[in-house]
Amino acid sequence: MALPAPLSGVIPPLCTPLGPRGGVDTASLGRLIRHLLDAGVHGLFALGSSGEAAYLTDEQRDLVLETVVKSVDGTVPVLAGVIDTTTARVRDHVRRAAALGADAVVATAPFYTRTHPREVAGHFRAVRAESELPVVAYDIPSAVHSKLPTELVRELASEGTLAAVKDSSGDEAGLRRLLAGLGGREGRRRGPAPGFAVLTGSELTVDAALLAGADGVVPGIGNVDPVGYVRLYEAALAGDWTVAAREQERLVRLFSLVDVGPEAEMGRSSSALGAFKAALHLLGVIDHGTTAHPQIPLGEEAVAEVRHRLVEAGLTPVR
Amino acid sequence: MALPAPLSGVIPPLCTPLGPRGGVDTASLGRLIRHLLDAGVHGLFALGSSGEAAYLTDEQRDLVLETVVKSVDGTVPVLAGVIDTTTARVRDHVRRAAALGADAVVATAPFYTRTHPREVAGHFRAVRAESELPVVAYDIPSAVHSKLPTELVRELASEGTLAAVKDSSGDEAGLRRLLAGLGGREGRRRGPAPGFAVLTGSELTVDAALLAGADGVVPGIGNVDPVGYVRLYEAALAGDWTVAAREQERLVRLFSLVDVGPEAEMGRSSSALGAFKAALHLLGVIDHGTTAHPQIPLGEEAVAEVRHRLVEAGLTPVR
Amino acid sequence: MALPAPLSGVIPPLCTPLGPRGGVDTASLGRLIRHLLDAGVHGLFALGSSGEAAYLTDEQRDLVLETVVKSVDGTVPVLAGVIDTTTARVRDHVRRAAALGADAVVATAPFYTRTHPREVAGHFRAVRAESELPVVAYDIPSAVHSKLPTELVRELASEGTLAAVKDSSGDEAGLRRLLAGLGGREGRRRGPAPGFAVLTGSELTVDAALLAGADGVVPGIGNVDPVGYVRLYEAALAGDWTVAAREQERLVRLFSLVDVGPEAEMGRSSSALGAFKAALHLLGVIDHGTTAHPQIPLGEEAVAEVRHRLVEAGLTPVR
Amino acid sequence: MALPAPLSGVIPPLCTPLGPRGGVDTASLGRLIRHLLDAGVHGLFALGSSGEAAYLTDEQRDLVLETVVKSVDGTVPVLAGVIDTTTARVRDHVRRAAALGADAVVATAPFYTRTHPREVAGHFRAVRAESELPVVAYDIPSAVHSKLPTELVRELASEGTLAAVKDSSGDEAGLRRLLAGLGGREGRRRGPAPGFAVLTGSELTVDAALLAGADGVVPGIGNVDPVGYVRLYEAALAGDWTVAAREQERLVRLFSLVDVGPEAEMGRSSSALGAFKAALHLLGVIDHGTTAHPQIPLGEEAVAEVRHRLVEAGLTPVR
Repeated sequence: MALPAPLSGVIPPLCTPLGPRGGVDTASLGRLIRHLLDAGVHGLFALGSSGEAAYLTDEQRDLVLETVVKSVDGTVPVLAGVIDTTTARVRDHVRRAAALGADAVVATAPFYTRTHPREVAGHFRAVRAESELPVVAYDIPSAVHSKLPTELVRELASEGTLAAVKDSSGDEAGLRRLLAGLGGREGRRRGPAPGFAVLTGSELTVDAALLAGADGVVPGIGNVDPVGYVRLYEAALAGDWTVAAREQERLVRLFSLVDVGPEAEMGRSSSALGAFKAALHLLGVIDHGTTAHPQIPLGEEAVAEVRHRLVEAGLTPVR
Repeated sequence: MALPAPLSGVIPPLCTPLGPRGGVDTASLGRLIRHLLDAGVHGLFALGSSGEAAYLTDEQRDLVLETVVKSVDGTVPVLAGVIDTTTARVRDHVRRAAALGADAVVATAPFYTRTHPREVAGHFRAVRAESELPVVAYDIPSAVHSKLPTELVRELASEGTLAAVKDSSGDEAGLRRLLAGLGGREGRRRGPAPGFAVLTGSELTVDAALLAGADGVVPGIGNVDPVGYVRLYEAALAGDWTVAAREQERLVRLFSLVDVGPEAEMGRSSSALGAFKAALHLLGVIDHGTTAHPQIPLGEEAVAEVRHRLVEAGLTPVR
Repeated sequence: MALPAPLSGVIPPLCTPLGPRGGVDTASLGRLIRHLLDAGVHGLFALGSSGEAAYLTDEQRDLVLETVVKSVDGTVPVLAGVIDTTTARVRDHVRRAAALGADAVVATAPFYTRTHPREVAGHFRAVRAESELPVVAYDIPSAVHSKLPTELVRELASEGTLAAVKDSSGDEAGLRRLLAGLGGREGRRRGPAPGFAVLTGSELTVDAALLAGADGVVPGIGNVDPVGYVRLYEAALAGDWTVAAREQERLVRLFSLVDVGPEAEMGRSSSALGAFKAALHLLGVIDHGTTAHPQIPLGEEAVAEVRHRLVEAGLTPVR
Repeated sequence: MALPAPLSGVIPPLCTPLGPRGGVDTASLGRLIRHLLDAGVHGLFALGSSGEAAYLTDEQRDLVLETVVKSVDGTVPVLAGVIDTTTARVRDHVRRAAALGADAVVATAPFYTRTHPREVAGHFRAVRAESELPVVAYDIPSAVHSKLPTELVRELASEGTLAAVKDSSGDEAGLRRLLAGLGGREGRRRGPAPGFAVLTGSELTVDAALLAGADGVVPGIGNVDPVGYVRLYEAALAGDWTVAAREQERLVRLFSLVDVGPEAEMGRSSSALGAFKAALHLLGVIDHGTTAHPQIPLGEEAVAEVRHRLVEAGLTPVR
């Protein structure tokens, strides 16, 4: 399906359910997709950081994308992560994503190598040239260790290389400057890149991003509580900012479940992904809370704490 | 004067006008204070980063603070920066600030040294114990290279060590988590630290911070356009978020004047402080745009660009 | 072939010659290998950072490794980089490397994700378990943004998970602490990991590393001047430290060719890899100086400067 | 006294002994100086990072410097740290150091602020212009969060602004490039800055630095074992590199005492300074192991471990 221009709304970065031995659990994945579509999300982003793409083999990535495209069946756009170190490798993933029926690809700046902004621009242009699929730039300095310069995003948006940016940089001032540079909250559609979408990946400041003129959100914890993010988005659309802020605050509290893993024992990433999956398991959406090797699994105490925080946020564990 | 509890509103971090040879220009400082008070600001923060405190000798710091206290004459609270590397040195500044009549002190975590959060806690407690003055924690990782942990701020707020935090970290998600932890936008005054104030130093996302429940803002560029920040704050108080966001967007555009200094020739800090001062000079508020040595002054072309951006933002240069 | 225990000597990280359209130039690769073997190097490391592994597709990586194994024909050990984001993906590369006849694999800590040291340990153990091939840990924080803790390397060495570490961290004090912890320059072979090799990737301080007890070196610029590094190594073996230091100093001067690319126009990595390849082209070893997309190629002026520095270092360009 | 040109040898950065309530313990300081002079050190550096300068008030700094100048009584050069955020504040310290009889001052790049290399150059020139005292640049990115560019050091050395650099960056490749740029280990005295001294602050790689042509060392742990560093230096002077390396390795092992403080409880800096002072106390040199507030003191277990490591390194605790 053609991507809406601009892309907008709530587009969760799909978790990838795994079986106890680490294989992709397609049945659980199907249920997770249903859980999200039922909540009214506006798109799905497969194979992102929350989807543990960096942990999956190429074969596993293909299986995930195939399952998503088939389950979604054209009801909402499917964005596919094509995360790899540099251009030639990313282009291989773009070809696979196109063949498997994705509606857009999501690519980061090169990583592992140190890459100059001019080279990053060349990278995105080559990724765009590889297929007919629109390209979403994934700005995630915590993973790739460089920030997409605001000026560069504007340039790539204006020339048509990029259809959207997913800003997971946490740099909300930079996001604001980007939006202002694109014409501002009221002038965007008459600005230099009218169909270009600005999506925030900062799931704790979505009300703020929407108030500033962003088009949508890609919230990791939206896997767990998609209804909350849809509610927040709709309140914002309606201009009911107090309701939006109240809902955001509830989601901020829920988000604290990412801290349940003891810092002395596991990485922050393992704790967050483990908590998302434990929550989905407790809610009855997926069959196992397993995260990919070498992430250390949450212990029983941590899982109990996840359950506690779900209840506090008004959700209903079934296990 | 006693600090309001919580401290709130627009509290600009005063620039320190300098004469052509680098001395403090107290006449210009007086006019700058008048410029801000006339705009309706709710407090003044002297000797912060925007005030070039790190560039001033102890004698110059004293002269600035004396001038501010005298000019303000009790109409709004005066916060005094006590910026120095570690506890004993900061305590010396606290004593001077108290003697000179400040209403509160603003202290960072230790810098130059690497300091553990438990040691940072001890630092703030010792600073608090040095005088009767309330202590504001200044969270500014770009300068001190550590972030105040949310949990630590909450602890120091609850026990009464801190009266406020000025969050210049740019970590808006962290700010949101702090606010939620203190009771949230509607529950703060019944929370663990009822009189504690959360002030944002992120001048480009003030509408967002206020929507999330922050009490006020300490905007560097508020030196240049205090009326804009007061307008933004009042719109937020009135719940008129669309007006607040529109005003914020105008200020985001104005803020772009910090980029006028060529990156190949000067630091980002020199460019920003130079642009603030050039703007104040062009607006007729201060007599010279001089910044402290060894900062490189803006060239003529850059100053012309500052003037251009002032006009674009609706301000009226008189030179 | 079985890896010597400990692995030692000069083991250049092979550049990957590319044709003008970006394909692997196997003929040039064969000549480069001959250039290195003729100089007396003690092993070859294919598909490392200098080999632009992060830029090559899986098919290109296979072609490189096949060519190297065939060209070397058992005369020296062939180490194969298995660089990818996390465990499952790295294991795929390990299987391919084993099938193609590598003598050892070289793996980094996970990247893109944030990984706890305990998880890094699990990663290396799983990589080791994937094949019979010895595993060399590649400590390269500039690429993966974490440092292998000294204590962890010692643990993994002692238990037999690692056969060697290639330390490209630039942390020479850490290297010294590691060597001391393994028994020291005179006690290593009676220490907790007698066959374990410590190789430095810091090509400008090789004399120092060997003096401290390191076993060998993996020098990027050893592609250009392998004779120099073999001479340095042999002087060190003979205890002739003054000769070693003098040779090192000549190589430090030669290394300055990595700076020829203008900083405003390209990344530091592109400049360095471009300069190595330009040098190999000027010396008549490879047919093209092409680097992989999206790296920006060196301009004519920069190439002329490379030639100049080759001559200054006593090498003889043929073009 | 005039500084030797180049300054050379072992120049420990003096610890500052404190009494149980945090005051400077001048009697212990006198004994520490005697301990070092008796070992044959070639100079003393007061008020550096190991001297806890960042923790001392101006009055305490003066008292330390007065005591040192008087105790040393012209037998070796006294270098005085003038550590503060920026130029004007540093110049105040320079004047005090000159008045108190220091033989040279040691200044870092500006910190707290972000400063462009051109501004750093202006800073050092202004510091140099403030007095007759030679200026040593203190390159310590871990504290000031910028690295002095090699090219800048060479420029400031050649023009006479700097008399020496104390390189505590840990960037040994950069040190090697600097030495090569100044003429190399055999050509330095005929190079662009013949009297300029390169001192390493990397106490674990001193043999390497001397082999590369450095003039001396400023070792924190040289407070504890000055005899070891003098022995290392003399072996290097005599060209006996095997002896130098063996001594360095012993000192590397001794250095491990900096790790005795539990990471969960205190900063790495508190642990290191605490361990140095605990060692000096155990060796009977100073009366108390007290470190400055807000550093957390070592516990009994940690102090016992310090004693253990002193014994292992061949030193003789008297308590």
